[in-house]
Amino acid sequence: MVEELDNLFALVEAAERRIRPFIIETPVLTNEDANAISGKQIFFKCENLQKTGVFKARGALNAVLAHLEKNPELKGVVTHSSGNHGQALAWAAKRCGIACTVVVPEGTSPAKIGLIKKYGAECVICEPTPTARKETCAKIAKEQGKQEVPPYDDLLVLAGQGTIGLEILRQVPDLDMILVPISGGGLTSGISIAAARVNPKTQVCPVEPVGKDLQPSLEANARLWTGPPQFLPSIADAIRIQQAGDITFPIMCQYTAKKVFTVKDDDMIKAMKWSWENLKVVVEVSSAAGVAVVLSEGFRSETAQKIGVILSGGNCLVDKLMWN
Amino acid sequence: MVEELDNLFALVEAAERRIRPFIIETPVLTNEDANAISGKQIFFKCENLQKTGVFKARGALNAVLAHLEKNPELKGVVTHSSGNHGQALAWAAKRCGIACTVVVPEGTSPAKIGLIKKYGAECVICEPTPTARKETCAKIAKEQGKQEVPPYDDLLVLAGQGTIGLEILRQVPDLDMILVPISGGGLTSGISIAAARVNPKTQVCPVEPVGKDLQPSLEANARLWTGPPQFLPSIADAIRIQQAGDITFPIMCQYTAKKVFTVKDDDMIKAMKWSWENLKVVVEVSSAAGVAVVLSEGFRSETAQKIGVILSGGNCLVDKLMWN
Repeated sequence: MVEELDNLFALVEAAERRIRPFIIETPVLTNEDANAISGKQIFFKCENLQKTGVFKARGALNAVLAHLEKNPELKGVVTHSSGNHGQALAWAAKRCGIACTVVVPEGTSPAKIGLIKKYGAECVICEPTPTARKETCAKIAKEQGKQEVPPYDDLLVLAGQGTIGLEILRQVPDLDMILVPISGGGLTSGISIAAARVNPKTQVCPVEPVGKDLQPSLEANARLWTGPPQFLPSIADAIRIQQAGDITFPIMCQYTAKKVFTVKDDDMIKAMKWSWENLKVVVEVSSAAGVAVVLSEGFRSETAQKIGVILSGGNCLVDKLMWN
Repeated sequence: MVEELDNLFALVEAAERRIRPFIIETPVLTNEDANAISGKQIFFKCENLQKTGVFKARGALNAVLAHLEKNPELKGVVTHSSGNHGQALAWAAKRCGIACTVVVPEGTSPAKIGLIKKYGAECVICEPTPTARKETCAKIAKEQGKQEVPPYDDLLVLAGQGTIGLEILRQVPDLDMILVPISGGGLTSGISIAAARVNPKTQVCPVEPVGKDLQPSLEANARLWTGPPQFLPSIADAIRIQQAGDITFPIMCQYTAKKVFTVKDDDMIKAMKWSWENLKVVVEVSSAAGVAVVLSEGFRSETAQKIGVILSGGNCLVDKLMWN
């Protein structure tokens, strides 16, 4: 049962009041080449310039602040994350002066682990399956009395991400469409709530790697995925979760456009390079998913004209180029 | 004889009124690591996110618009440039619907030539000496009746660059210092004029590659460079002109701080990589000169506390990494 839009939107508004002093109102970039290639007006929302280099700082900080409002004695938080949410939660916890543990799967990039540790959090490595991650996290929460802050399937977290929707619709009020890279659905559901209230004409469209198959589930308003939760074999490591969350999915069924774009790894890599060269910003490969859509041949026939593209993050090594 | 500050400042204000509708008010980024490393508050002004990827769009557009105000029949413009100013002038001319020729020295990167042509300008290649460039340019101006728009030694051009000073001092009003990568001095003199009027306490400090030796000349209020104009052997191709211009130098003697920072190629390359990784923006190597200063050990003992750093441009290939 999905909460009423009034209640969900109130969570996003509360999140904005809470996190605004600590969060960057990220700039929106335009680019004449992107407009020419797509035949539309494209607006790139630079969450790669957000604190910690990724939009996840918003949701993590909202959750930590809200939990501290309820329980000022809270000693710490714990989460599982392939890197970006972990880093964001470590940053949020440090800012609020509480401890943080991040459970990361084997194979997480050393750069991302280094950044989690930089913010003073403890890292615990576990098997790289969604189930192992959740279980390890729950165990630490129970044994150490830490508050779990899930990476996406949480109302406080998704409400924090939703503040991006409020911001971009103030910066470009009449967007026809917002393209959002999707993993578990925190970013997509949050922005969908904001748009549903601020400008219901704005379609919020998920952009997924191959193999996620979100569209049929969204159309059916039902989870059509079979088998246990799994990671997709995409190079886009921040959006490899196949299934949307139990909390985020019903919200998306109600407020997200039933129009999903699917992008191949090669196209994300090309879009990543294009962004570095033309937008002059460093985006990680997952973050280029929406860029890949607007640069694609097929997108020219899209009727929407004013398009927002969320550049979700910029945390990647610059020693090795994916396109070489 | 330098113009009165009132007159110079009026040129900068006029430039801002002229170019504002077409130019990006570039964002200012902060970074906790930069603050920690330097022990100060650092504000990065992202002119790499400016139209054409470089601050030079401002000066070029101001010059083209001002010349067209005086002579609406003007058919075209011509300049010599190692790339960035040429690209900016090509863009400005295209926007105003007039022709443009750019004289570029042999050895200019194909990427930069490609971008000049992309904006519809004609490219003429000449010998890579300052003298050959000026002569070729003057010849074309005379033969084709085109207006010369010099890359830096021009009041309209430097006034356009000066609009960055107005902007950053609105964005961060009480800066103690602004670090500016210097080549011929257009950017430095323009920003110095703006700061001298808006906030005279703000020191505008040039950042030069090794071999420029600007400090003694600034201190002496006299051109102490010997020999003909030459290019420095720095990797920083946008700031390789050794001597400041005949118009820019006297302005700098009056309004620029007599405090020049000198940076080595290696330190600029490291600072370039640091910017990509930490600021999540693509800056070209010349543009990282100011970043190299704030990251340097010696800068910790500087007494200025609030520091603006101009990230002047982001036009570089992302196929090859200078640090590999």
